[in-house]
Order: sequence, then C-alpha cells, then structure tokens
Amino acid sequence: MPKPLILVTNDDGITAPGLRMLIRYMKDLGDVVVVAPDSPQSGMGHAITIDSTLYFKRVVTDPGDGALEEYSCSGTPADCVKLALQELLPRRPDLCVSGINHGSNASINVIYSGTMSAAIEAGIEGVPAIGFSLCDYSWEADFRPAEKAVKQIARESLKQGIPEGVVLNVNIPRTRGELPKGIRVCRQARANWKEKFDKRTNPSGRDYYWLTGEFELLDKGMDTDEWALAQGYVSVVPTQFDLTAHHAIQELNNWSLHE
Amino acid sequence: MPKPLILVTNDDGITAPGLRMLIRYMKDLGDVVVVAPDSPQSGMGHAITIDSTLYFKRVVTDPGDGALEEYSCSGTPADCVKLALQELLPRRPDLCVSGINHGSNASINVIYSGTMSAAIEAGIEGVPAIGFSLCDYSWEADFRPAEKAVKQIARESLKQGIPEGVVLNVNIPRTRGELPKGIRVCRQARANWKEKFDKRTNPSGRDYYWLTGEFELLDKGMDTDEWALAQGYVSVVPTQFDLTAHHAIQELNNWSLHE
Repeated sequence: MPKPLILVTNDDGITAPGLRMLIRYMKDLGDVVVVAPDSPQSGMGHAITIDSTLYFKRVVTDPGDGALEEYSCSGTPADCVKLALQELLPRRPDLCVSGINHGSNASINVIYSGTMSAAIEAGIEGVPAIGFSLCDYSWEADFRPAEKAVKQIARESLKQGIPEGVVLNVNIPRTRGELPKGIRVCRQARANWKEKFDKRTNPSGRDYYWLTGEFELLDKGMDTDEWALAQGYVSVVPTQFDLTAHHAIQELNNWSLHE
Repeated sequence: MPKPLILVTNDDGITAPGLRMLIRYMKDLGDVVVVAPDSPQSGMGHAITIDSTLYFKRVVTDPGDGALEEYSCSGTPADCVKLALQELLPRRPDLCVSGINHGSNASINVIYSGTMSAAIEAGIEGVPAIGFSLCDYSWEADFRPAEKAVKQIARESLKQGIPEGVVLNVNIPRTRGELPKGIRVCRQARANWKEKFDKRTNPSGRDYYWLTGEFELLDKGMDTDEWALAQGYVSVVPTQFDLTAHHAIQELNNWSLHE
C-alpha cells in the first residue's frame, strides 16, 4: 500500500520551529510535502490574495526533516493550500496538517487564525485537515511533549476519516516538559478579546495605535476547549465552515420581512 | 427617545459607492458614524493587524451623506470595528452594518469576506450586526433596487434584536433596475471555488501567478442563499461564530484518542 501523502503548512512561515517539528512528526506517518508562507502571516484570518501576484519557489530548508519537497509561497496560508492542491502536489493529499502554531487557537481565536484558515481551506476542498497549535507564543517553545498527541490524532484521522464538512482544531496545553494528561473532544468556548489600543506618537507627531488586548473567557462549561487546556488536556474541536445558525432560522422567519 | 446609533463600515474602502449608499440608507434610521478602511481590503477574511501600527483620521468625504462623523483607518475591516467600539464611538452602537459590498458574499464566500468579518467582529462584541452585499462586482453597480430591503432588514434588526451569537449575512441579487422579488431567510449553500492559477512571467523572467477561479455550487437545496438569489430574492443567512460542529463530537469520541 502506498504511504499516505501529507501536506504540511502553517501561518508562522516556513522557518518556524513549530512547522519544522510537525514535518518530523508527519514523516513517521507518510510522505510529506511542505507548502508554507515565506514570512509570518499570523492574524491573517481567512485572507486570500486576489489583488496581487503570488510567487512560490522550491526550497531546501533542512534536509534532515525528511520532507519530499518544500515550497515557500508569497501568499497567505489559504493561498498556500490552494496552490498546493492545484499546482504543486503530485496527487490529492490524504491529509493536510497546519501548524504547529506558536500560540493558542482555542475558543474565539479560531476566527482570527491563519493556521486554522489553511486547514479550513483544505476542508472546503474535501481534504481531511487538522490545525495544531501550542499554547505558547514563544519561538523557543518546547514542542516535544506534543509529539504523542499530534501523531495519535493525525493517525486516527487517516484511519477513521474526518467527517465531511469538518476540520479539527487541536490545541496543546503548555506543559513544563511533561506530557499532556490526555486528549479531550470539546466544543469552542465562548470568549472574546477586550481590546486595548496602545496610543503612541510617531517622530512626525502623528498618533498611531498598537492593537493589544486581554482574553476574556465567558464560558463556565466543562466541555470546552479552554477548560480542557486549563486542566492540562489536549483539546480537539470539530470545526465547520457551514456558518449557518440553523437554530435561528425559525425566529427570523417571524420577522416582518415579507410584505 | 434617542435615535439609534449605527456604525457603518465595509471592506471596499471609505470611498466605495456601496458604502456611500449604505450611509444614506442608514441615516433614515438613526445617527450614523462611519469607520472604514482607507483602501480596499477584499479577500482579507477575518484578518486583524497585530504586527504593524494602525492609523486613523477623521475625514469629511461627502457632507451630503449625513454621517455624524467619518473616520478612515489603515487597518482591516475587523480592525475598524475594534477601533470604533473601543476608541471612536461616543457610546455602544445599537447596530453595526457592513457593506454594501461590491460582489456576492453568499455561500462559501462568507469565509473569505472582509465585509462579513466586520459584522462578525461586532457580533463577537455583542453588537447586533449585518453584512450587506450586492451580487455585482462593478464599481458602477446600481444599488437603488436594494434600498427597500436593506432598510427593512436593518429596521427589523433594531426592533426585534438579532439572536445572540448570530450576525446576518444579507445578499442582494443583481436586478436590471427592478426591485428584488422579496426577502428569504436561508441557509448557506454548499459550494467551493475551482481555483485556476494563471501563470505568467515577469520582466525579470520569474514566474508568478494570479489566483482566479470558478464558483462551483454543490447544493441543489431550495432553502439556500444561492437558490434564493437565483430566483431574484434577497437572501438572509443567520451566521454564527461558534464554529463547533456539535453533530461530530459523538463520532470523534469513538476514536482511539484516550489510551
């Protein structure tokens, strides 16, 4: 039986330690091709490049990682997946994995996540897909405790098949060298960011702002990703791109929209 | 009773005809403040600006439009909403409207939509919000047939309140001067884009690509936004930012994730 073909991408860029680690983990499961942004794309949400040109090039970043081929692309994570599927891969991949992101994409962060947008793009195209994120923003984050869970979830995804219309949002707790306690299937916790705009003045006297903020958890449920992570578990949230709030259709049908 | 305060934004930029028209429609319903990108941001998905600085300035674009105040911002649509809510508005708005986009955001387009990302950002912050789009990409599109439906949907949203966790994705069919046939509450149609990468060579001999594609409808349902639009109706899809595929949780719990 041929080995599974696995597309690896991310939003932190092709040199990010989290991507290099994910390549190493995936080569134990199949043949790996990498198509990743040539520079960091965090916070890009589900952006695509429609009004400027896209470049890509074949690169050799670290032969020891064992990827069959690697390409860096000038576009966003979603662009990378589109380009990989249409132009670069020898055949349809069996799995697309994105990450491992340096920082959480749990809860409402999924909405802003370039890591997840790559996975969602693959899902829209019918390719089983997973976004992996470690709850540690540091470039020196320790990814080793994540290895077992990352491989287990990828292996099960290859074996069981991910349900249609669903991609997996996997977040890994920050542990101090220890293994996570286990893996929990969760729902997305309700939360938002309390923005603060840090106002400064540039050398020409013009005001500008840095966007900062504090995460505000608004959900006490014990079935959420935030709860699982706080307890030391890896969270797996099945995530969909049909955004219809089906439960609200009936209510809206009672509005006066039809005269 | 004070007039409702309405935040108007978009992704085509502060000078776009669709935004100017939306301001005029909204001033019949309340006090209008505009915070919109200083340049087009289409295809930006739910991007936010975290690694560069944000500028905004108070502008007077067209006094005849009747907005109380207008601000242009260097950021994305989601940035505009965050900045408006935290820094620029005198109080919490009663409604946020985004658009009117030049081009469809129905079906899977919602995922890539800057127009909808602004509405979703407001929804995350608990502000009732609607994204409006006209299925005509032209800068000279005729927005007049949309007026009645846009006002009706905004008026009902102010009166009834939009269900929590839901924002409205409204798409308006392209008609040749006639009114749409009516308004339909719909679900998001299943579809994707069949990408084509148009390969060219730049003057230095390097290959580059333009992302193009064809929309592929994969859904024969008569309850979808694409169906309603094809019949000449305005589509209203209640859209949510809890992306959890709740129906898939049980299936994933049967995977071997727990040893």
